[in-house]
Amino acid sequence: MTSDPSRIALFPGTFDPITNGHLDVVRRAKGLFDELVIAIGTNPAKVDLFSPEERRAMIQQIADAEDLPVTVETYTGLTVDFARKRGAKVILRGLRSASDLAFEFQLALTNRAVADIETVFILSGESHGFTSSSLIKQIAAGGNIDRLSRLLPAQVIDAMKDRMDRIRQIAHTNDAHTQGT
Amino acid sequence: MTSDPSRIALFPGTFDPITNGHLDVVRRAKGLFDELVIAIGTNPAKVDLFSPEERRAMIQQIADAEDLPVTVETYTGLTVDFARKRGAKVILRGLRSASDLAFEFQLALTNRAVADIETVFILSGESHGFTSSSLIKQIAAGGNIDRLSRLLPAQVIDAMKDRMDRIRQIAHTNDAHTQGT
Amino acid sequence: MTSDPSRIALFPGTFDPITNGHLDVVRRAKGLFDELVIAIGTNPAKVDLFSPEERRAMIQQIADAEDLPVTVETYTGLTVDFARKRGAKVILRGLRSASDLAFEFQLALTNRAVADIETVFILSGESHGFTSSSLIKQIAAGGNIDRLSRLLPAQVIDAMKDRMDRIRQIAHTNDAHTQGT
Amino acid sequence: MTSDPSRIALFPGTFDPITNGHLDVVRRAKGLFDELVIAIGTNPAKVDLFSPEERRAMIQQIADAEDLPVTVETYTGLTVDFARKRGAKVILRGLRSASDLAFEFQLALTNRAVADIETVFILSGESHGFTSSSLIKQIAAGGNIDRLSRLLPAQVIDAMKDRMDRIRQIAHTNDAHTQGT
Amino acid sequence: MTSDPSRIALFPGTFDPITNGHLDVVRRAKGLFDELVIAIGTNPAKVDLFSPEERRAMIQQIADAEDLPVTVETYTGLTVDFARKRGAKVILRGLRSASDLAFEFQLALTNRAVADIETVFILSGESHGFTSSSLIKQIAAGGNIDRLSRLLPAQVIDAMKDRMDRIRQIAHTNDAHTQGT
Amino acid sequence: MTSDPSRIALFPGTFDPITNGHLDVVRRAKGLFDELVIAIGTNPAKVDLFSPEERRAMIQQIADAEDLPVTVETYTGLTVDFARKRGAKVILRGLRSASDLAFEFQLALTNRAVADIETVFILSGESHGFTSSSLIKQIAAGGNIDRLSRLLPAQVIDAMKDRMDRIRQIAHTNDAHTQGT
Repeated sequence: MTSDPSRIALFPGTFDPITNGHLDVVRRAKGLFDELVIAIGTNPAKVDLFSPEERRAMIQQIADAEDLPVTVETYTGLTVDFARKRGAKVILRGLRSASDLAFEFQLALTNRAVADIETVFILSGESHGFTSSSLIKQIAAGGNIDRLSRLLPAQVIDAMKDRMDRIRQIAHTNDAHTQGT
Repeated sequence: MTSDPSRIALFPGTFDPITNGHLDVVRRAKGLFDELVIAIGTNPAKVDLFSPEERRAMIQQIADAEDLPVTVETYTGLTVDFARKRGAKVILRGLRSASDLAFEFQLALTNRAVADIETVFILSGESHGFTSSSLIKQIAAGGNIDRLSRLLPAQVIDAMKDRMDRIRQIAHTNDAHTQGT
Repeated sequence: MTSDPSRIALFPGTFDPITNGHLDVVRRAKGLFDELVIAIGTNPAKVDLFSPEERRAMIQQIADAEDLPVTVETYTGLTVDFARKRGAKVILRGLRSASDLAFEFQLALTNRAVADIETVFILSGESHGFTSSSLIKQIAAGGNIDRLSRLLPAQVIDAMKDRMDRIRQIAHTNDAHTQGT
Repeated sequence: MTSDPSRIALFPGTFDPITNGHLDVVRRAKGLFDELVIAIGTNPAKVDLFSPEERRAMIQQIADAEDLPVTVETYTGLTVDFARKRGAKVILRGLRSASDLAFEFQLALTNRAVADIETVFILSGESHGFTSSSLIKQIAAGGNIDRLSRLLPAQVIDAMKDRMDRIRQIAHTNDAHTQGT
Repeated sequence: MTSDPSRIALFPGTFDPITNGHLDVVRRAKGLFDELVIAIGTNPAKVDLFSPEERRAMIQQIADAEDLPVTVETYTGLTVDFARKRGAKVILRGLRSASDLAFEFQLALTNRAVADIETVFILSGESHGFTSSSLIKQIAAGGNIDRLSRLLPAQVIDAMKDRMDRIRQIAHTNDAHTQGT
Repeated sequence: MTSDPSRIALFPGTFDPITNGHLDVVRRAKGLFDELVIAIGTNPAKVDLFSPEERRAMIQQIADAEDLPVTVETYTGLTVDFARKRGAKVILRGLRSASDLAFEFQLALTNRAVADIETVFILSGESHGFTSSSLIKQIAAGGNIDRLSRLLPAQVIDAMKDRMDRIRQIAHTNDAHTQGT
């Protein structure tokens, strides 16, 4: 069956790792599209915590566990090029009320100008939608991963515990308060 | 045929009158939903320029002229109540990059909390997405309606020309620069 | 015992009615000050839902029920004048991440310039901090008050049920989506 | 001598009364234009504190006292119409860092779309650029006008002292903290 | 002829490359100043796509082609120091409605505090004012440069086609959606 | 004497160097807490201008000179971990009206979610609250340090003069206008 491209949406990100905020967006978008593709962007030049394939498997497992109707795929290169290849006309983004809106708008308007891709925004849930993956890695590097339990799925917390060395290596053990005020 | 409620969306507003910015949102949302209802809210206590029925007819005529697949309806009362009655689970809003985001987010989160209605945001087009209906009425009251031709559909401009007395009556002949700086 | 004025804080508002968002701010501020005064501003020219004394009694009852160490008082006139009279040097405000920050900052800087009163901001809780009292009255006027149960304390919902006529009278039965987009 | 219209700028507002923030913008714009017109918009339907002519005389006196090279004029109707009549192609606005930017941008883009008038923004000075005339009237209504001495020119404070009855009449003796949180 | 320094403005940036958004600002500022200097900042430590001299020549050619009355110059060091050397008292910046305003304001206030340089803001045109040079390089690295035709002058697109190797080298072939959500 | 943890506040940052904006926040917070700890975060991986111990001594000297009742300490690792170790339940942050609020809110909500630490915001003073330490280092690298006299305490300016080589080494002699517009 081929879908109308306006009914296929990409939800792009690095998802390294996926957070409760990301999952909240996926749950709220349930039913909005014929197909929702969680599109894991991979950046060879960037040091990652989990490999693209590990991320894919982890997200697929979480989606299966709660029966979320999504496809999980990895890609390299531009998101708009992957969208065209996948036959999608829509990008889904979760807006946190404390998001960097200027950045999101610039991205959405550029994707429209260069590839006629529309971006559809949905507000992420209030209680866990505010934290970025990089903030999470900073906190994890501090040691006590269990305190991230409100922000991350249990599967991700377990996987992170097995990878403490790498976390400490890629996130310095200090935090955003000391990035240069 | 009954649709999945997640595929029926309301696009609510007063539309007094509809602007190119509103139409731009409708065009961009084309194909995103099974049914898109332009929902004209009516407020008995408020002095309007065009009656609800006039607005409905005007929008229907514009939609027909360019074959926009929308339903146009009027309602009174709460938008979330009309959504439930219409079997819709989604509200569509056009975000202007210069929108009052705090207000939009508050509305969206409240509609979610009281009625489990999700709000989906789409960026309105850059070139005519910035002007509100009330600003337009202020300018029209100044006299020269043709200068609104970049901001309003031709049908609306024609209809406004026939109603200059009423425009002058409901919008004082001065503007937002003198609302109290 | 007299306190250092820097340790007495006012939490001003109309509280007509008090919401879970307001209460969340009060709970989070617990312990921050020697005395926290919930200061109910009264405006003779404005039609209110509950009288100042009714609001005072309702808030006092809620505070007593969960042992919140606050004083509840009503005042007329400028907040900075009431602060001086009460011996307070600090105003407490809850910032919603979707607040009108420009307005809050203007108010805080003005209060500093005219009365040397500092304003201290605290983020209100994500899950119920987003709704204003006026939005709540609009929704209540639509009829089904119980759907406000995530946003209001049970005592307030009960009190509102006894006052449906007045709610309908002061809040038109329609909503912010139709205030003029 | 006739000037290039791009070198004639309007600085529009109600200026009821003019504040130190307004004057700061005028001082900073000194030399930027061939002619700077302080354009006092008048709104017959609005209750004002000082009449348009009183405002004009007060601003002229202040400008003369410190040799500010400005023209002070009153107008009715749309600002863009007055700009055309005055041969000006530019509107000057002071941005407060806590300004309502969404509103300013909407106004600027609308003025461009309907009249090809460009708006030029300048940041108002940090120390007194934050307060609106309406906030000032609220505070004045509280009684002690001298505490506004950081926010208003001395001439304005004197003029306000002679008009306490009117101030109390148009601004209720309470403040923005009690406008409905 | 020597000009009043308040009539000489710098429009600073890296312009690597210049975009339609930049050109739009220059066109709108036409006539506002006696002299407008497009000031190409050069950063020895940063890998650039076009050399400062290539950028200067490219911009000069575009300005000549449409008779834009500008001077195009390169500089190193602080912008405020170059302004003083050039006898300019004004910096011109294009605000995109989705700009990083906090950053722009901080810069403008700092330039005022350390060098008495005023910054004048103008809104860039809606239809192509939103994209940064770095976003453009990311997209170009994806391959199909012609899709940038709404965002870049034709001369720039041609020059970029001759430099695909360098573009791929300095911008990784992936995009902002995968920078770390 | 042991204090209530709600009365001990951390004011975290790198303070490399401390600015008048930081000091303004400290002065305004005077009296608000039983103990205010200026907490100097240290990041072994980051090149600093002054060593943690130099920063501690410089801040202590400034605080002593004007009798500011603060404790000055250095720490490594997460701010929330240092807060717990110090027995503090509150983080104090200065909001500049042009701050990156999205970033501040994200940080505050994360600190609440992972460690039940509340963040209390205070507006920094208008006249010197806008400049970041990194912007200051850029300007200093341009040569003339005395022009920073409105932004930095005299002690810091003196200390920077003795360290011009290092400043030039860590901050390239160009500025934010040429970071990539």
